[in-house]
Amino acid sequence: MAKLKAGVIGTGFVGEAHVEALRRLHNIDVKAVAASSLESSKKAAAKLNVPNYYAGYEKMLAQEDLDVVHNCTPNKLHFPINKAFMEAGVHVFSEKPLVMNSSEGEKLLKIAAKNNVYTGVNYNYRHYPLVKEMQNKVRQQIGQLFHIRGYYLQDWMLFDTDYSWRIDPEKGGKSRVVADIGSHFCDLLQYLTGQKISRLTAATKIVHPERKKPVSETKTFTQSDQNQEYEKYEVETEDYAAVLFELEDGTAGSFTVSQVDAGHKNDLFIEISGSENSLSWSQENANQLFIGYRDQANQNLTRDPALLEGKAAERCYYPGGHIEGWSEGLKNSIKDFYDCILQKGDPANYDFATFADGQQEVKITEAILKSSQAEKWVEV
Amino acid sequence: MAKLKAGVIGTGFVGEAHVEALRRLHNIDVKAVAASSLESSKKAAAKLNVPNYYAGYEKMLAQEDLDVVHNCTPNKLHFPINKAFMEAGVHVFSEKPLVMNSSEGEKLLKIAAKNNVYTGVNYNYRHYPLVKEMQNKVRQQIGQLFHIRGYYLQDWMLFDTDYSWRIDPEKGGKSRVVADIGSHFCDLLQYLTGQKISRLTAATKIVHPERKKPVSETKTFTQSDQNQEYEKYEVETEDYAAVLFELEDGTAGSFTVSQVDAGHKNDLFIEISGSENSLSWSQENANQLFIGYRDQANQNLTRDPALLEGKAAERCYYPGGHIEGWSEGLKNSIKDFYDCILQKGDPANYDFATFADGQQEVKITEAILKSSQAEKWVEV
Amino acid sequence: MAKLKAGVIGTGFVGEAHVEALRRLHNIDVKAVAASSLESSKKAAAKLNVPNYYAGYEKMLAQEDLDVVHNCTPNKLHFPINKAFMEAGVHVFSEKPLVMNSSEGEKLLKIAAKNNVYTGVNYNYRHYPLVKEMQNKVRQQIGQLFHIRGYYLQDWMLFDTDYSWRIDPEKGGKSRVVADIGSHFCDLLQYLTGQKISRLTAATKIVHPERKKPVSETKTFTQSDQNQEYEKYEVETEDYAAVLFELEDGTAGSFTVSQVDAGHKNDLFIEISGSENSLSWSQENANQLFIGYRDQANQNLTRDPALLEGKAAERCYYPGGHIEGWSEGLKNSIKDFYDCILQKGDPANYDFATFADGQQEVKITEAILKSSQAEKWVEV
Amino acid sequence: MAKLKAGVIGTGFVGEAHVEALRRLHNIDVKAVAASSLESSKKAAAKLNVPNYYAGYEKMLAQEDLDVVHNCTPNKLHFPINKAFMEAGVHVFSEKPLVMNSSEGEKLLKIAAKNNVYTGVNYNYRHYPLVKEMQNKVRQQIGQLFHIRGYYLQDWMLFDTDYSWRIDPEKGGKSRVVADIGSHFCDLLQYLTGQKISRLTAATKIVHPERKKPVSETKTFTQSDQNQEYEKYEVETEDYAAVLFELEDGTAGSFTVSQVDAGHKNDLFIEISGSENSLSWSQENANQLFIGYRDQANQNLTRDPALLEGKAAERCYYPGGHIEGWSEGLKNSIKDFYDCILQKGDPANYDFATFADGQQEVKITEAILKSSQAEKWVEV
Repeated sequence: MAKLKAGVIGTGFVGEAHVEALRRLHNIDVKAVAASSLESSKKAAAKLNVPNYYAGYEKMLAQEDLDVVHNCTPNKLHFPINKAFMEAGVHVFSEKPLVMNSSEGEKLLKIAAKNNVYTGVNYNYRHYPLVKEMQNKVRQQIGQLFHIRGYYLQDWMLFDTDYSWRIDPEKGGKSRVVADIGSHFCDLLQYLTGQKISRLTAATKIVHPERKKPVSETKTFTQSDQNQEYEKYEVETEDYAAVLFELEDGTAGSFTVSQVDAGHKNDLFIEISGSENSLSWSQENANQLFIGYRDQANQNLTRDPALLEGKAAERCYYPGGHIEGWSEGLKNSIKDFYDCILQKGDPANYDFATFADGQQEVKITEAILKSSQAEKWVEV
Repeated sequence: MAKLKAGVIGTGFVGEAHVEALRRLHNIDVKAVAASSLESSKKAAAKLNVPNYYAGYEKMLAQEDLDVVHNCTPNKLHFPINKAFMEAGVHVFSEKPLVMNSSEGEKLLKIAAKNNVYTGVNYNYRHYPLVKEMQNKVRQQIGQLFHIRGYYLQDWMLFDTDYSWRIDPEKGGKSRVVADIGSHFCDLLQYLTGQKISRLTAATKIVHPERKKPVSETKTFTQSDQNQEYEKYEVETEDYAAVLFELEDGTAGSFTVSQVDAGHKNDLFIEISGSENSLSWSQENANQLFIGYRDQANQNLTRDPALLEGKAAERCYYPGGHIEGWSEGLKNSIKDFYDCILQKGDPANYDFATFADGQQEVKITEAILKSSQAEKWVEV
Repeated sequence: MAKLKAGVIGTGFVGEAHVEALRRLHNIDVKAVAASSLESSKKAAAKLNVPNYYAGYEKMLAQEDLDVVHNCTPNKLHFPINKAFMEAGVHVFSEKPLVMNSSEGEKLLKIAAKNNVYTGVNYNYRHYPLVKEMQNKVRQQIGQLFHIRGYYLQDWMLFDTDYSWRIDPEKGGKSRVVADIGSHFCDLLQYLTGQKISRLTAATKIVHPERKKPVSETKTFTQSDQNQEYEKYEVETEDYAAVLFELEDGTAGSFTVSQVDAGHKNDLFIEISGSENSLSWSQENANQLFIGYRDQANQNLTRDPALLEGKAAERCYYPGGHIEGWSEGLKNSIKDFYDCILQKGDPANYDFATFADGQQEVKITEAILKSSQAEKWVEV
Repeated sequence: MAKLKAGVIGTGFVGEAHVEALRRLHNIDVKAVAASSLESSKKAAAKLNVPNYYAGYEKMLAQEDLDVVHNCTPNKLHFPINKAFMEAGVHVFSEKPLVMNSSEGEKLLKIAAKNNVYTGVNYNYRHYPLVKEMQNKVRQQIGQLFHIRGYYLQDWMLFDTDYSWRIDPEKGGKSRVVADIGSHFCDLLQYLTGQKISRLTAATKIVHPERKKPVSETKTFTQSDQNQEYEKYEVETEDYAAVLFELEDGTAGSFTVSQVDAGHKNDLFIEISGSENSLSWSQENANQLFIGYRDQANQNLTRDPALLEGKAAERCYYPGGHIEGWSEGLKNSIKDFYDCILQKGDPANYDFATFADGQQEVKITEAILKSSQAEKWVEV
């Protein structure tokens, strides 16, 4: 079988991770990368051993015959790139959040429908084996849904000297922490329950109204330079949000997101509580699923293919106790999208988030900002 | 020095625990107990080796010359008993919630002021050594407050066959889970931060609108009888609540309380996040305090008198690693109240919750019910 | 029923803890305490509210009519005090290790038999609820015994400035870490399996051959004084031991004990592995019992009376999640001994360690020293 | 720069993992695979997208011009394959244990020296970022070494119906659990301390003297087939071992290994305790390093490149909290070997285990069997 041909736009931390994940699947040709400049594109191509490279996505689109493009650029570029490639009939796998606002999202959904392409958004946490197992158990053995609880906490924006393009609404959108990590939480809970968040009330906070922006550029997640010079930057995007919500069937829940919670690095946690038991999972302890009971001992189910069912077992690569993590989640996420393409499948039968799912997260983000502003419940 | 004379009203699980804690202090005479009937009072007196016993608190008040009374009765009786003993000049240490509603609370505060008695409410979680250490650290090293997060989760009401007097608004008040355990959480966070919750928005849920009430009586927290006969009972008090709140200085926070969260037995957790670090503590892991950092390794501080400061160290009874728990928290709670009495101290210099603190929790509970009803933010 | 009359000899940390535990049982009269001097005895009696006090045990024996004596003195005094009171027909509850050497132990066993008194040794870890539950499960559901593994680790002797009477062979005996905490581990594993350690090979180490002894006295487990003056002290007792052993039926096991393992405060852990599952328990996480499975999710059983069986449930004082710890273990230990006395029971039907059990631990300690010296396997 | 050409022999679980790791490095051409039959080789080549395939290693050696060969075959084939490729001047990266016995090892060391090739053994646990950090800290801040403690526990051989080629001494060698996983533990501790195990005493056990061997073949780590037919198989290789050891400088330690410990999947743990602090790491919690202190709070250091030093930070691929695991350890292990080849470096300046290290583990394994047989201490 001919290998599918992929291009990757954006060669930062996550773009490189996409290339590596593609390599692990063995059956995909990574044909080209594109970064913001010719120099950085060339450098990335050399490092990642990719044959072709381009400064900007337009040339890549013009010159490469790709099956799939991976959009790993900053949020601002999600719309134009996703649009351009879909219009050219290329399947698009986009980083999240899908777009800067829901009107952009509406347009993309129409273009996707018209051009008959597969669309995926990299909500990668869906694809951890124990998340699939959790979904199975929510459907089969949790009983009646009682409530949902969770958080996604980081600390990389803790200090006022922390700066990233994500702070700038022009580049990242009006929301920061909700769009960036809250959308992961919401996607996860909707994936797990099979229900949408229908209404919510929220509070957001900016703990550093003013930050110090480095005069020269820095990368996300890297060690700070002590001799850095800074300029004042007035912050308009939230550092923190807390949300009360209801699902379609009225089930209540709440979650907190923060990028200023010291000691929490990538601390995503979700609990779904039902009439028979409760299920909870933490990304930082990804190889264990907690099952809580009233009338028997609580359980910790290990990510062990011999102990999991169906697709959850299939998603395991190594025996129990051989720790799998973020990179395997990404590999599974991308594999699921390509499997659907190769099998000309119906996305409804796969686990990846489509652009429709991505648009739902954008609408939730907008509802959270609106609710926080108005201090009242709003419909999504 | 003459020993202080104490009486204990209510001889259920918590009443017995008060007697035992008093015995551990060595310097208090438990003179009398009172339960709902002469028979149960006599039985309790025999079991606990207490010289005198009474059916009902009135006779105890009439016949005993007590320094302190412990009110360990169901919520409905908190007001009349607290009132009667204060009016007789007896210091009162009451179980929580202080009263059924805030108008009762107002009256008690006036009576207390007039009769010049010491008043305490058993918000026992304040008195764990690592909670005191956490309070020290919130004041001295957390930096600027960023946000607060927590929960108090139990599962003893999970099944619709679970019944307790606390469900009945006539006996327990209009609120169940918020009044019973949410008040603990709120007291703890206000104690730790030195600030009051000023406003909030909340959602409450009744997951079992109808429960099965046993035809004969049962005790809280005991194993269910398989042959029990039941009658239908329409539930008016909440099983679950989630709350967004603000402190006086605008700091945001959120918490969840539930009595229907399978696998959680007495799972009280609080995190206070600041600009320098985050501090978190869990009652079920009471001998460890987590300190989260952005730029160094996170810490787990063990409850070890050699590692704690001031009053936190004084509150430890055993060396590090010799697990202390709920009973030592209660012992410390009662000791702190008696220390204040013996030293004729100012409660502001002690750690116990006064009736004024108890009244604040009642007002928060009322605000939560009101907010949930109206679906908007309300002032406390 | 008349209350049993108890005297407590030794009023350090553990002597005080015995008095407090006795008070919690409600049905015992603590009549007298004895410490090393009249002054310290008087002080302890005042603090603990005990009516009588004596300088030395002889006067207490002569003047008090006791049912039970608690021997909470340093190891050197275990033999003479236990002997004297048994010869006077007083039941003896002794701290561990029972004696300084096995020839003392032989004599005590003969005296006990002759004088028809009940004897107990405070191997308190037997009496935690989940240890009882673990014993039930070892008997009923673990299948064939495969192997045993554990440790008891502390750090209070980490620095060469740490000194205690336990270091001095004249006061504590030839063995330190094995006699002091290794004996706890061995007692626990023998209690849990119902089998004795029959043979072993061991290695012991002195990591500080020379320590600094304070010129003035210090207490165990307390913060060090920076201005302390020291003198050189040549250490003859071990800081560390590792042991391979066999039970009577040939089951293999191993354990490590250390008082110089930084960060471990009172870290006692034991795992018993069988053909059906493995069971493990840690004193520092005393409210959870881990049950490991090959072919299903692992379990964490909470100390919740509603989830435990028989005596394990009876030993719980508070509902699940209300943390119980060291003080409840001690209370249970003492209660079990007094229950046997009150019921004129056969110790074989109770859980407390008798002097025969205490003698077994002394013989294991001697075997470990002998094996380490000779570098070969020895019979116990 | 031209890409190095690699061949992989053995296409089971670990052979596939090597291919995938090579792909993640971007700069290596996987030219050929070889399995036991032409059919299985062809299948593997197709699955892994490798151009060439061979039935058996001899043809691969004859026809391919390889820089490096990966020996991922059963133990029995380690010697002949490693020998053949080294003699042909090919660098060899071999799975562990290096060989079936130390006389084979001696021969390989001579051949390697003569042929001037790089040799590596896949002791992959050396290559986790926090293991490198731990090594740094052992050297720089632990103080004087006090003692070492650890284990490697699995349960995949728990039932007597569990069978694998590793049980058969003809295919796996005289030792099973020590050779297979004990060698990992020993390599890790020697890597971390920079010292060799010089002498030891050990006990081994066969808990299932007779197992049921499936009449048809099964794979390691896969779910059991309920309808499997079995034949009796007399077991000669150990299920369990416990070892007391000394390092070159006299530091004492102990470890336990088992493949029959229910609930433990791949549970490798090591603690190194020194005069300043203790360091411990668990493979199943690979993203945390525990640092224990006597006189301050214990620490949990997260695998976060911003918090680690030098090579430990370089070995991280993702930001803190993005869980890395077994596959990244393998990637790092292989990368380190290839880096040395590409840089024509001195293996002493790299972290990978050489054949000399592999031979040391074989000698320890032999010493353990000998000691267990003779019941005495033996020199390695």
